[in-house]
Amino acid sequence: MKPEFKVKSINFKRKVEESFNRQKFMKLINAKLVDVKPGYCEIHVPYDLNLTQQHGFFHAGIISTVADNAAGYAGFSLMEENSSILTVEFKLNLISVGDGEMLIGKSNVLKNGRTLTICRSEVFIVKNGIEKLCAASQSTLIELKNKSDKAKKRGQVYH
Amino acid sequence: MKPEFKVKSINFKRKVEESFNRQKFMKLINAKLVDVKPGYCEIHVPYDLNLTQQHGFFHAGIISTVADNAAGYAGFSLMEENSSILTVEFKLNLISVGDGEMLIGKSNVLKNGRTLTICRSEVFIVKNGIEKLCAASQSTLIELKNKSDKAKKRGQVYH
Amino acid sequence: MKPEFKVKSINFKRKVEESFNRQKFMKLINAKLVDVKPGYCEIHVPYDLNLTQQHGFFHAGIISTVADNAAGYAGFSLMEENSSILTVEFKLNLISVGDGEMLIGKSNVLKNGRTLTICRSEVFIVKNGIEKLCAASQSTLIELKNKSDKAKKRGQVYH
Amino acid sequence: MKPEFKVKSINFKRKVEESFNRQKFMKLINAKLVDVKPGYCEIHVPYDLNLTQQHGFFHAGIISTVADNAAGYAGFSLMEENSSILTVEFKLNLISVGDGEMLIGKSNVLKNGRTLTICRSEVFIVKNGIEKLCAASQSTLIELKNKSDKAKKRGQVYH
Repeated sequence: MKPEFKVKSINFKRKVEESFNRQKFMKLINAKLVDVKPGYCEIHVPYDLNLTQQHGFFHAGIISTVADNAAGYAGFSLMEENSSILTVEFKLNLISVGDGEMLIGKSNVLKNGRTLTICRSEVFIVKNGIEKLCAASQSTLIELKNKSDKAKKRGQVYH
Repeated sequence: MKPEFKVKSINFKRKVEESFNRQKFMKLINAKLVDVKPGYCEIHVPYDLNLTQQHGFFHAGIISTVADNAAGYAGFSLMEENSSILTVEFKLNLISVGDGEMLIGKSNVLKNGRTLTICRSEVFIVKNGIEKLCAASQSTLIELKNKSDKAKKRGQVYH
Repeated sequence: MKPEFKVKSINFKRKVEESFNRQKFMKLINAKLVDVKPGYCEIHVPYDLNLTQQHGFFHAGIISTVADNAAGYAGFSLMEENSSILTVEFKLNLISVGDGEMLIGKSNVLKNGRTLTICRSEVFIVKNGIEKLCAASQSTLIELKNKSDKAKKRGQVYH
Repeated sequence: MKPEFKVKSINFKRKVEESFNRQKFMKLINAKLVDVKPGYCEIHVPYDLNLTQQHGFFHAGIISTVADNAAGYAGFSLMEENSSILTVEFKLNLISVGDGEMLIGKSNVLKNGRTLTICRSEVFIVKNGIEKLCAASQSTLIELKNKSDKAKKRGQVYH
């Protein structure tokens, strides 16, 4: 289930880091890009009261953000130098409440097609140093060739 | 597709508002609970650079937060006074980029079962005053009877 | 939520019917293509003991077949004359058991993009003449341009 | 990702086999229950022209049947002797066309909760003896305690 992937851009790591750093929402929630390998990405978000739902746990919106973004960058790591990426859709199961000091999102590419890429993510909640499965998702991503990830295209349509 | 629902708690509106107001993440992203009816909820989030992805548009994590939260409170409006609610899972299609001045999430209950409730949400992006479909989701929620929405239950498991 | 669509092929109806008739699995389960409009499709499957699960009701596999196929042909109705279509993914909620004399699947296109099309389907179970919501799904379809729907391409990859 | 599970019924294997054998749709499509372990199930379906879509490949409805049923019985293997099971929902990505001589569905339980169970399935297509990933799904199942899997409950609601 974890095939080895060949990258199409030798700068895949820098490309992913630069894109991640341009996402101001990642800064707002203090998310860290912890690992990027071909077809793999890991993102951490430390607990903060501002990120919580009604019971004081991580909000499902943060959990899905971590799952979606880990998937997006796992997929982006395999795309061409001049491609941009968009999430087509994802499905997320919430498995345990986000009760802990850190969220860890890990995503692996299942299939890297010419146009579409499929990923599976797991989000773990760390409490007292112990990782527990918090959520699991499955995502479809689309590669937009010759569309810079930097350019702001007003009025752009997803796919 | 939009059946009429009978509420089980006459305080359903206040119950939803109080729960929404306890979610600190809603404050962080400046989300407003704009409408609550039996089996329906509407949430607005104004544009802010802090909520953006790499192209300066609303981040998919914010779009999914709006879809998920609208679904959760549409479902919660139909639950008993002493019930708590959790999202079991949801699936979201991103349909247009979040390029505009406001996100509007609207969710309707499709089926309110004894244990599980199914909702469909649409998220619209408003640009120059024109609403455009930005995302569509389908969610499964679980009603936890006799579990106060206020209580913080450390170590709690979802379902 | 039900925008009007312009067809790209004036033969859209015949194209859908011919494709449906080439699906031998539709014959096996005695499925009928009952209605095709631009962006809409309706499929019926009468009860048969051969289509049941352990309690004697319609099997979830038949319910998902009806939801997926209605979505596929709702989307296909809007595609170009020389395009083929494939389902990228779908998500289905089973809402009531398939206890009745007929399944009715209805699907509407939510968004017809250049490459991807998003549909929502509902499957109803008819018992003693009364329709009840049995399942609801949301699907992503891909248009393969200049790939005949008739050609059998051995070794073909989805997308 | 593949935790070890303790069964609650020592007859789990027989229970799964008997339920599978009561599903007349499995007989129609000539599906074989090939392996059942605690939290795991494997189902095979040999190629037959009656199971095909318009290009002569396995129909997506068959692929989703295999994914859903493998998930259902993986979950059922962990449930109590007197419980019944229903699929709440599933999401399936179709990854390669079903072009081959056999479909193999394998499913693993990710989380076995008190009420809900989450599974991930993979469906492989075998061509000339080589297995290739054809589809991947994620499912939510519900355990109905003290509801015999054999009883036919007319008018029953899912959850």
